[in-house]
Amino acid sequence: MAIEGTVEKREPRIRLGMVGGGSGAFIGAVHRIAARIDDHYELVAGALSSTPEKSRQSGAELGLDPARTYDDFKSMAIREAKLKNGIEAVAIVTPNHMHYPAAKEFLRRGIHVICDKPLTSNLADARKLLKIAQESDALFVLTHNYTGYPMVRQAREMVRKGELGEIRVIQVEYPQDWLAEPIEQSGQKQAAWRTDPKQSGAGGSTGDIGTHAYNLASFVTGLELEELAADVHTFVPGRQLDDNAHVMLRFAGGAKGMLWCSQVATGHENGLKLRVYGTRGGIEWVQADPNYLWFTELGKPKQLITRNGAGANAAAARVSRIPSGHPEGYLEGFATIYSEAARAIHAKRQGRPVDPDVVYPTVEDGVTGVAFVEACIASSKRNGAWVKL
Amino acid sequence: MAIEGTVEKREPRIRLGMVGGGSGAFIGAVHRIAARIDDHYELVAGALSSTPEKSRQSGAELGLDPARTYDDFKSMAIREAKLKNGIEAVAIVTPNHMHYPAAKEFLRRGIHVICDKPLTSNLADARKLLKIAQESDALFVLTHNYTGYPMVRQAREMVRKGELGEIRVIQVEYPQDWLAEPIEQSGQKQAAWRTDPKQSGAGGSTGDIGTHAYNLASFVTGLELEELAADVHTFVPGRQLDDNAHVMLRFAGGAKGMLWCSQVATGHENGLKLRVYGTRGGIEWVQADPNYLWFTELGKPKQLITRNGAGANAAAARVSRIPSGHPEGYLEGFATIYSEAARAIHAKRQGRPVDPDVVYPTVEDGVTGVAFVEACIASSKRNGAWVKL
Amino acid sequence: MAIEGTVEKREPRIRLGMVGGGSGAFIGAVHRIAARIDDHYELVAGALSSTPEKSRQSGAELGLDPARTYDDFKSMAIREAKLKNGIEAVAIVTPNHMHYPAAKEFLRRGIHVICDKPLTSNLADARKLLKIAQESDALFVLTHNYTGYPMVRQAREMVRKGELGEIRVIQVEYPQDWLAEPIEQSGQKQAAWRTDPKQSGAGGSTGDIGTHAYNLASFVTGLELEELAADVHTFVPGRQLDDNAHVMLRFAGGAKGMLWCSQVATGHENGLKLRVYGTRGGIEWVQADPNYLWFTELGKPKQLITRNGAGANAAAARVSRIPSGHPEGYLEGFATIYSEAARAIHAKRQGRPVDPDVVYPTVEDGVTGVAFVEACIASSKRNGAWVKL
Amino acid sequence: MAIEGTVEKREPRIRLGMVGGGSGAFIGAVHRIAARIDDHYELVAGALSSTPEKSRQSGAELGLDPARTYDDFKSMAIREAKLKNGIEAVAIVTPNHMHYPAAKEFLRRGIHVICDKPLTSNLADARKLLKIAQESDALFVLTHNYTGYPMVRQAREMVRKGELGEIRVIQVEYPQDWLAEPIEQSGQKQAAWRTDPKQSGAGGSTGDIGTHAYNLASFVTGLELEELAADVHTFVPGRQLDDNAHVMLRFAGGAKGMLWCSQVATGHENGLKLRVYGTRGGIEWVQADPNYLWFTELGKPKQLITRNGAGANAAAARVSRIPSGHPEGYLEGFATIYSEAARAIHAKRQGRPVDPDVVYPTVEDGVTGVAFVEACIASSKRNGAWVKL
Repeated sequence: MAIEGTVEKREPRIRLGMVGGGSGAFIGAVHRIAARIDDHYELVAGALSSTPEKSRQSGAELGLDPARTYDDFKSMAIREAKLKNGIEAVAIVTPNHMHYPAAKEFLRRGIHVICDKPLTSNLADARKLLKIAQESDALFVLTHNYTGYPMVRQAREMVRKGELGEIRVIQVEYPQDWLAEPIEQSGQKQAAWRTDPKQSGAGGSTGDIGTHAYNLASFVTGLELEELAADVHTFVPGRQLDDNAHVMLRFAGGAKGMLWCSQVATGHENGLKLRVYGTRGGIEWVQADPNYLWFTELGKPKQLITRNGAGANAAAARVSRIPSGHPEGYLEGFATIYSEAARAIHAKRQGRPVDPDVVYPTVEDGVTGVAFVEACIASSKRNGAWVKL
Repeated sequence: MAIEGTVEKREPRIRLGMVGGGSGAFIGAVHRIAARIDDHYELVAGALSSTPEKSRQSGAELGLDPARTYDDFKSMAIREAKLKNGIEAVAIVTPNHMHYPAAKEFLRRGIHVICDKPLTSNLADARKLLKIAQESDALFVLTHNYTGYPMVRQAREMVRKGELGEIRVIQVEYPQDWLAEPIEQSGQKQAAWRTDPKQSGAGGSTGDIGTHAYNLASFVTGLELEELAADVHTFVPGRQLDDNAHVMLRFAGGAKGMLWCSQVATGHENGLKLRVYGTRGGIEWVQADPNYLWFTELGKPKQLITRNGAGANAAAARVSRIPSGHPEGYLEGFATIYSEAARAIHAKRQGRPVDPDVVYPTVEDGVTGVAFVEACIASSKRNGAWVKL
Repeated sequence: MAIEGTVEKREPRIRLGMVGGGSGAFIGAVHRIAARIDDHYELVAGALSSTPEKSRQSGAELGLDPARTYDDFKSMAIREAKLKNGIEAVAIVTPNHMHYPAAKEFLRRGIHVICDKPLTSNLADARKLLKIAQESDALFVLTHNYTGYPMVRQAREMVRKGELGEIRVIQVEYPQDWLAEPIEQSGQKQAAWRTDPKQSGAGGSTGDIGTHAYNLASFVTGLELEELAADVHTFVPGRQLDDNAHVMLRFAGGAKGMLWCSQVATGHENGLKLRVYGTRGGIEWVQADPNYLWFTELGKPKQLITRNGAGANAAAARVSRIPSGHPEGYLEGFATIYSEAARAIHAKRQGRPVDPDVVYPTVEDGVTGVAFVEACIASSKRNGAWVKL
Repeated sequence: MAIEGTVEKREPRIRLGMVGGGSGAFIGAVHRIAARIDDHYELVAGALSSTPEKSRQSGAELGLDPARTYDDFKSMAIREAKLKNGIEAVAIVTPNHMHYPAAKEFLRRGIHVICDKPLTSNLADARKLLKIAQESDALFVLTHNYTGYPMVRQAREMVRKGELGEIRVIQVEYPQDWLAEPIEQSGQKQAAWRTDPKQSGAGGSTGDIGTHAYNLASFVTGLELEELAADVHTFVPGRQLDDNAHVMLRFAGGAKGMLWCSQVATGHENGLKLRVYGTRGGIEWVQADPNYLWFTELGKPKQLITRNGAGANAAAARVSRIPSGHPEGYLEGFATIYSEAARAIHAKRQGRPVDPDVVYPTVEDGVTGVAFVEACIASSKRNGAWVKL
C-alpha cells in the first residue's frame, strides 16, 4: 500500500523551457502540470506564443522571469544555450508544423527536447528531424502520453513475457465526437488548427488521434506494422482534413488488426481502446478507465487487474504513485513521460547510461507515426490498396 | 409494469415439425424452447437426425409420436403435407448445406419454413431458394435471432424516426474465442461441421457469425451495403475455413463502417456489438447485456435506455414480456422470431394481410447474407479489393 | 458449448392448475411462461380471478377447457382431486392473503403446490400452512425465483465448498423506484394490492422485495439469521405500508450484514444485489446482470465468472440451458424453480426419493420469510431494538 | 474543450511546511504532489518524522534546506513564525493523535493549517482545536480529499439546486479489504498505527474511512446527521480497533440512510460509493471511477454525466483541469483541496474576503467527523441504540 513516488536520491530540478503553450492553449497547461507532478523540473524560460506580445503576457501570467520570456523559439535557443544556468530541456507544444523547426534549434545546441505528437506535419520533416536527433547529444522524447499509463506498461510487459502467447489480432480505436459539427468554422481555436493542413499536415483525425492509436498498439505489442489498407473520409462538409478513418493492419509476423479513428463518433469523448488477442490470452484497456486492465487467459475467467492491485506487475508499479483503488489519471500518465525523460536526463548529466527500464517514445516512434498518417492517406487515395509503411 | 405477453385472442397452436436438432445438437433445443415460450406452437413431427436410428431415438426422447418421427426430411414433407392435421410449419436446424434441399421440399408443399441462418452454404443455392420462396404461398422466416431482442428493435425504430440524424459510421463486431484452438480436430461436433466447407460453405467465421453481425447492422440501420473490402484469415493451423475477418464497409448513401468477426479472440464468448453514429446521435448495443441500449444525443449526456424502462419505445415494448429491471435473454429474443412468424402464419390462416408491425428476417435477407460471405472471400482473394455485394 | 436442456428420459407432462393470474395480472403470465420453458407442465385448469366472470374469460383467453375453468379455488380443488386426470400440481399466484386459504385446499387433497412469495400475509397463517404442508404428501414449492438463477446457484455452491472461507459480512439490497409516487392512489392495480395491508400483510417493501433479499442472502450463504434491528419507514404520504427499510443483521456464527429494500429509490428498476465477504474470498451478484458473478480471492485479481463459462461450477451448469455469452434471464431463472419442482414431482410419481441435487425454496423458507417481515416491523416499532427471528 | 487550469493572475507561491510525511509514509507524498499540481505552493520546511534523525534524512531526500528541517513540530512553529520568509501554511500529515498538538502550535502563531483527517483522535481534542481555530486568524483546512473530486462538486450543486427534489434516502459505503488479515501484527507500518488506539483514537475503520463516508454524504447532501444506530465489530482476532461497522442514519428533515465501512470486505480496494435518492431524482458516485456521475430523473432514462462533459455544471468545471474523456484522479481531487486553500490564503494575504465559491472541509466538519466516530462506538456499546450526534 505505502508508496513513495520519486523522492529517493533527489536530483536538482531540470531547468525547462517551453515553446508554445501560451494563454488559451490546452496542451501547454497539461505539459506544465505533468512536469510538476513528480517535481523533476522547473519551468524557467519560454517562447509561449506566436506573437511576441502574447508570448510576454503569457510568460508574466506564468510567473516567468521577463528576461527569459522570448519572442520566438530561435532567440530562446540561442540565448539559453549560452547562459550558465540556461535551460537543459525544452518542451515543444506548438501546432504540428512548428515541431520540426523548433526542435532543430534546440537539438543542435544540445538542449534536450520533449515534443508533443505527431512528430512533424510531414514525413520529409520527420526524417530530417530523425537525422538531427541522431547526430545530437541531446535526448528527444515524444509525448505519446498514453504510454505513460501504468496499465499500458502492464500490458506491454505481459506481451513481452509471453503471457498472451503469439499475438494474432489487434483491435485499436480512438473515437471522439467533438468535431461532429464544423466548429472550426466558428472560431474554435483547437479545432481550427487541427483541421488546417498548413498547421497539421496531411492528416486530420489520422494525425491527431490515429497516431495515438497506432503508437499505443505498437508500444504494447512491440510489433512492427508492415502494411495497411485505409478508407479515410471527411464527413463534415467544408472540412479540409479527414475526420474518420477505417484502417486494416498487417503486422510483421502475421498478426492482423484494425484501427478506427473518428472525430464524428457521437457519444465518444476520448474513446481510445486497445484490445490484443494472442494464442494464450487476451487483454483490453480503455483510456477513460485507465486503472483497469482486463485479462483473459484462454479457458479461464476474465480477470480485472487494477493499478497497483493484485496481479499488477513491476512494470506498472514502477510508474504508479499511489495505492490501488485510488485512481490515477491522464495527468499522471503524462507526468510519467516527463519523469522517464528526467531519469534519462539525469543519466546524461552524470555521464552514465540510461537505465534499461526507462521507457519513453522516441524520435523513431515519431517517424513511424508520421509514416502511418501518410500511408493512410496514400492507401485511401488508391481506393484502399495495401500500402507498405 | 404489468405486462401480459401474448394471451389476447389466443389462436390454436401451430403444428410444427423439425428437421435436425436431434440429441447433442445445440440449436435444435434452442428452437424448441423459443417455440414454446409464447405458446404459439406445438411440436408434432420431426426428422431430427441424419441417420434414421438417431432420428427415431431423438423423437422418442422428445416425446414425439413415433408415427411422425421420420427418417428423413423428404418423407416428412411428403407425408405431413397429406395429413389432415399435418404440420403447418417446419423448423430447419441442420448444418448450412442442408437448408436449401430441406426448405425446398416444404416450401413446395405450402408448409411454412422457419430456417436457421445462414440461408444456405452458397449463393447459387440461396438464389434458387429465393425463387422457390417467392413462388410459394408459404412463409419463409430466417432466424437471425438477434433481431428479436427488444433493444435491437428500439435501436431500429430510433434510426427510422431520425433520432440519430443521418448515419455516418457503423461499427459492428462479433468476436468469440471458442475456436482459438483446433478443437474440430478432436471431435467437438459443433466445431467439426462449422469448420467443414462441405457443410458450412465457403465461410467459417464469416458465415457463422459474420452474417449475424452484417444482418444486425442492416436490420438496425436499414442501409444497404454497397461494397466491402476484406482481409479474411485462418489463424489456427490445419483449419479449413476462416476464423477471423476484418472488413471495411461502404453503405448506400455514404455511411462507412467496419465489421470484425473472429473465433480466436481470447476472452470473448459471444461479443456481438453494434455501434451506429449519426449526425444527431449515437447508439451502442451489446448482445451479452441485451436489456440496455446506450444512446447519446450530440451535446447531451449519454443515456442508458432499458428494456421496458423510461425511454423505451413502442417497437421495443411490443416484443417485451416482463417489466424493466428483470432481464430477458437470448431465448426470449429467439422466441420473438417465432412469435412474429406465428403472427404472420395466423394471418395466412385467416386469409388476411400480415400486420405491418410484424417484423422478421426474410429469405431476401438470407440471400444478402450469403452474398456478404462470398463477397468477403472474393475480396480477400483479391488482396482486399473493394467488391460490390 | 453444446447443451441440451432437459430432454433426457422425458416424463409425461405434469398436469397443472392455476389460482389467480387472470387478465392484467403480471406474475401469472410469468408463471405460465416459466412452466412452459422446459416443457415439464401442461396448464389444464384454472380459477384465474376473484370473480367468476373474469375467471371464465381469462380461461378462454388462455385456451383452457371451459369445464376446467373454475369460479373459485375451492371448487377447483374439490373437483380436480376427483378427476381421473385431474391436476397434479397447482400454481398459486394471487395476492399474499389468499396464499394460505388456497394452498390449504390443494395440499389437503394431495395436490402439489407451487406458490408465489411471500408465503402468507402473516406469521400465524404461515405456521398453520407449515403444519399442513408437513402433514401432506404433496410438495410445497415457494417461487423465490431468484434462487433459480445459475450464478446464484454458483455462489451458493462456492460458499458451501468453502471458497469464500468463513463468512464475515453480507450486504444485500433490493431498491426499486416504481412506488416513488403514490400511484396506488390513481388505480395502478399492482401498486394497489401491494400497498394494501389487507392483501399484503404488515409489510410493504419489506414483504414484497425485502423477503426476496433476505431469502437470497440465506440461500447463498446457508446462514441462519438470528436477530435484526430495523428502521422501517413510509416516505410517500398517504401510503399504508412501508416503502423503505434499513435493516442490520446478525447471523448465527457471527456474520453480520445489512439489508436495504426500497420502493422509492429513484433510478432503480429491480436492483437486487448480493455481496458476501469471507476470510478467503468475496462475491457480488446483481440481478439485472444475472449471467455474471464477480469473485475475488483474497490477494488475487477480481474474476468475472460467467454462466456456463470458464470457472462456472456444476451447480450452475445444472440449471443452465444455453452456452456462455448468450444471456439467460428472469424467465429462465423462474423456469428453473418449475423444473426443480418437476423433478421432485416425477420422483413422487415414481415413489422414489427426490435427487439430493434438486433444490427449491420450501415452506420452511417461507415461514422464516414472513418471520423476517414481522421482525422488521416489530423492531422498528421498538425504535430499532434488536429482535430475534 | 480547452481549459487552462489556474494560471490567471498568478500569485507568488505559498511557503509551505510539513509535519510528518517522512520516508515510507504514504499520505505525505500525496500531500506534496497535491500541493504541486496547481503550483500554488513551495515546500520550504519540515518536521517530517517522529525522530530527529529520520526527520533530517527525509528532509535531505526532499531537497529541503537543512536549516529548515526541524527535529519536531514545535521548534518548527516557533522558528518559522519568526522568520521573515517563514512558512505561511503547514501541512499536518501525522497519525491522528498528533493532529491536535501540532495544529495548536501553528494556529496560535497565525500559520494556516492544512490537516489530514480525522481531525483528532478524540472529541475532547476536537473541541479544543475548534476553539483554537476560531480564535486564530489563520485558516484551518481539513483534507477530506474526496470533496475535491469534480463530480462530487457536481452532485452537491445538483442537490443544492433541487434537481433531486427532497432527499429521502442516503446510502454510503466505504469497503476495503487490506486489513482482512492481521497484517499489523507483522509490522506493516500503515496498518500498525491505524489499528492502534493510542495513535488512531477509538475508531478503527470508523475513524479511518467511516469518517470519509460520513463527510462525503454530508458534503453532498448538506444534511445534518441527527442520530445513528451502529453495529461496530472487529472481525480479525487480536485487532484492537474495529474493522467493520454497520450504521443506520437519521438526518434532520427526515432523510434516512445507511453507512457501511469495512476493512475486511474481500475484493474492495477503496470502494467508497455514495447514492442519494430524492423525490425527483437519484445519483450515484463511485470513487474508483470518479469522472462519472450517474443521474436519474424520476421517470426518465439514467444519464451518465462526465467530468467537463455535457451535463456537467459550473461547480464541477470550476475544479476540473482537463477536457472530458481524459480522466482526472485521486491526486487531482486532493490538489483541489490545496488549491481551494490557496485561494483562501491569497484572500487573507490581500485582506479581502474569501470568494464564496471557495469550498473546503473545515474544522467544524472535523468536529462532527470525530463526533460521528464516537457516536458509532457509543451506540454499538449500547447494542445499537440510537445516539444523537
